[in-house]
Amino acid sequence: MPPSIPSASSEFVDRIEAYRSRVEDFIARQLPGTEAPFHQALRYAALGEGKRVRPLLTYATGEALGIKSDILDYPAAALEIMHTYSLVHDDLPAMDDDNLRRGRPTVHVVWDEATAILVGDALQTLAFEVLTRAPVDPLIIRDWISILAVGAGQGGMVGGQILDMAGEQRTLNEQELRQMHDGKTGKLISAGILMAARAGNASESVTACLAEYGKHIGLAFQIRDDILDVTQSTDMLGKPQGSDAGNRKSTFVTLLGLDESTQQLKAHYQSAIQSIGRISQPAPDGLVYLASHIVQRNK
Amino acid sequence: MPPSIPSASSEFVDRIEAYRSRVEDFIARQLPGTEAPFHQALRYAALGEGKRVRPLLTYATGEALGIKSDILDYPAAALEIMHTYSLVHDDLPAMDDDNLRRGRPTVHVVWDEATAILVGDALQTLAFEVLTRAPVDPLIIRDWISILAVGAGQGGMVGGQILDMAGEQRTLNEQELRQMHDGKTGKLISAGILMAARAGNASESVTACLAEYGKHIGLAFQIRDDILDVTQSTDMLGKPQGSDAGNRKSTFVTLLGLDESTQQLKAHYQSAIQSIGRISQPAPDGLVYLASHIVQRNK
Repeated sequence: MPPSIPSASSEFVDRIEAYRSRVEDFIARQLPGTEAPFHQALRYAALGEGKRVRPLLTYATGEALGIKSDILDYPAAALEIMHTYSLVHDDLPAMDDDNLRRGRPTVHVVWDEATAILVGDALQTLAFEVLTRAPVDPLIIRDWISILAVGAGQGGMVGGQILDMAGEQRTLNEQELRQMHDGKTGKLISAGILMAARAGNASESVTACLAEYGKHIGLAFQIRDDILDVTQSTDMLGKPQGSDAGNRKSTFVTLLGLDESTQQLKAHYQSAIQSIGRISQPAPDGLVYLASHIVQRNK
Repeated sequence: MPPSIPSASSEFVDRIEAYRSRVEDFIARQLPGTEAPFHQALRYAALGEGKRVRPLLTYATGEALGIKSDILDYPAAALEIMHTYSLVHDDLPAMDDDNLRRGRPTVHVVWDEATAILVGDALQTLAFEVLTRAPVDPLIIRDWISILAVGAGQGGMVGGQILDMAGEQRTLNEQELRQMHDGKTGKLISAGILMAARAGNASESVTACLAEYGKHIGLAFQIRDDILDVTQSTDMLGKPQGSDAGNRKSTFVTLLGLDESTQQLKAHYQSAIQSIGRISQPAPDGLVYLASHIVQRNK
């Protein structure tokens, strides 16, 4: 990436591993612990090594608004569990037919398709259930669930998936590609940020800035993903390199080329930073760090 | 069925069609209305002809507790949408591989497997979202969502499905069969009843009676299903006759025989009626009617 993107804040980066293990421990406590094969499959799916970008964004937003971590654990975990269900279903033979995820065989490879369908189904349910357990005003819980459902449902993540499947049959244009990614990735990333904003009773204008940040960072995340798919090795990615091309998927790289994609990545990064610069000066360091991490990551 | 089961109450039965179209209209209003293929698939799955037993139980319970229908619409619809998602996923080739449901080709037959997976996923999300829209105390919404999630998740409906899949590999014993059905059908039926009880701020003892009714009526429902699978025609069922035997599934009929299954059906009916007889005398007429409808139904 160009040098105009600042290096990581030394503050948030010091806390990042603590947040990552925090949300993983929290998720582990939400899952059944028996040796029953289905329970093992649930843990395998939910506790594999992951970047945990979504929960980190929730913690970083919450931090900026002064919310305690033991409140943020609930939306952070719910978001990651929701994301995990979508990965398990995405990898199914009838969908992307991927054998590798987070460096390990996918759930339907280790168990079978029926188990993978049910693991995804149960994880989605659990995402909502986790939110109901939070020790906060039920009004906040109701709003969290609404935000998460809108982000995950037919107008959000699943809607993006549908466009993604369509993109395997025909070439999407740039507008459709943006719409696809805004649904598939952006809406859920934004949901995590908005759940933190809701927990902090953020004002409308702050929430709008955070929503704009989420939208840009979601698109940046996906452009970076598309770039990595053609520039990185399978080993580094933990999923098959070139799998988008193999599925004949429309990506930013196939549509715009590598140079233009990199330019757009930079533009979304800058817009994201501008959005949160309207909240405070300097902008909240965790959100700045995560934005730069997202556009610079190598896997 | 033996004559000891009373005929339908003339009161609730008069309202049953109104409740049925009420919940169908309500569900229709929760779904996107465009001609986009995915939206059509969502409506196809959710608005097909169904018995709507689960929402009817919610309305009947709510009626007994004096709750307005326009509050009950939310849990009734959420429950039916949750049930519908499970049917769409159940019918997938990797699961029961059924081509016919509610008298029409299944979603993956009309569209494809990927669409059916995503239709199920989106419907599950919608079930929770619908509850957040209810004009009631957010504390009730939180509890509804908790009840629905517990009924639908790995300890409920999905857990039952897992046992159901296991039953295709080996013969379940009677205890496993009951556990399977209690999960697969009973927990969600009970969830509908318990959501109505929660809306009415029912006492612990009334809630316990309703929970017991739900448990018995859930098992009765499934035993009747197993009996119908061997005694009714495909035409009447709207799904393939003998499909359980085709899948080599363990059922009450294969395990206990037709006579013993019929005896148990009767016993569960009587236990259900006794449970709600402890709430009022005479017992709430809607719940009595639905119990007798469930054990006597022909499809």
